[in-house]
Amino acid sequence: MNGFASGEVSALARVALQQAQLAEQVMQSRTPAAPCPLCIEDGGVLVAELDACRVVRAGEPGFPASYRVVLTDHVAEWSDVHIADQLEVMRVVNVVETTLRAHLHPTKINLASLGNVVAHVHWHVVARFDWDSHFPAPIWARPQRAVDPAHLAVLTQLMPAVDEALRQQLLPW
Amino acid sequence: MNGFASGEVSALARVALQQAQLAEQVMQSRTPAAPCPLCIEDGGVLVAELDACRVVRAGEPGFPASYRVVLTDHVAEWSDVHIADQLEVMRVVNVVETTLRAHLHPTKINLASLGNVVAHVHWHVVARFDWDSHFPAPIWARPQRAVDPAHLAVLTQLMPAVDEALRQQLLPW
Repeated sequence: MNGFASGEVSALARVALQQAQLAEQVMQSRTPAAPCPLCIEDGGVLVAELDACRVVRAGEPGFPASYRVVLTDHVAEWSDVHIADQLEVMRVVNVVETTLRAHLHPTKINLASLGNVVAHVHWHVVARFDWDSHFPAPIWARPQRAVDPAHLAVLTQLMPAVDEALRQQLLPW
Repeated sequence: MNGFASGEVSALARVALQQAQLAEQVMQSRTPAAPCPLCIEDGGVLVAELDACRVVRAGEPGFPASYRVVLTDHVAEWSDVHIADQLEVMRVVNVVETTLRAHLHPTKINLASLGNVVAHVHWHVVARFDWDSHFPAPIWARPQRAVDPAHLAVLTQLMPAVDEALRQQLLPW
């Protein structure tokens, strides 16, 4: 029915079981001796702190308009985040995105939740410009060009106003 | 009040206006003569088609367990997607993630909505393994190692069963 002969199915099941055992060993070996950095530090300039998450401006080198929406709880995978927290986090991601678009008119917004190095859910929200060092490649790829420092300087100067607009939308009291 | 002198504010406003005009020119110059590829092609092996989105297995080279959740409508930015469609798309992203985790026990799941090249909302959902060519770097970064072809072969063999599990969860009739 599934297109496999029964011998193939058990071979695949055996492989899957081995993979599961291997993954468990890897997870155990990766249990950090040191505490998670996103549990003990803001991870950037703290812009707003809500119940489910906080917004920090990461200001990654070459990308002044890069924010992170960091889950408050230490959870590694998005699908393990409680649905109420998922909704709140995605609401905040939307606010960061719309604020970046309104203030900076970027060529594109990039969203990503990777966490391969720091396995604590955090969304990257990055305003991309056609003049930036990597566009249209992802910010983690090989650079495409040298950046005009004047472009970066202008963008950097605009960021405190973006922070303030985010604060006003996320913390409206 | 915002820490800027009024001269600085008008200088910043002028820069922001110039940026907005530039962005509009860029957007106009980027209006494709050819139709959007994700509007005319599935963009991978079609696994399930729902109202708001479809799931395709992208099978990017070196990453057999890479799926895309492609918005049905042609919308460039996530925050322009109708909230009902956002909720449906994120539900589907959750299903893809949990299915990949249950079947493949990856080291980590990576989620990303970039769209710098094809500006039609699509979520990358990729199962990452500590043995893969790039781990722990993003899949778009510089490779970290050569991959054991046996690992890739095993993973590739498991993918039709993952497709089938996805279909059963997303199209339960």
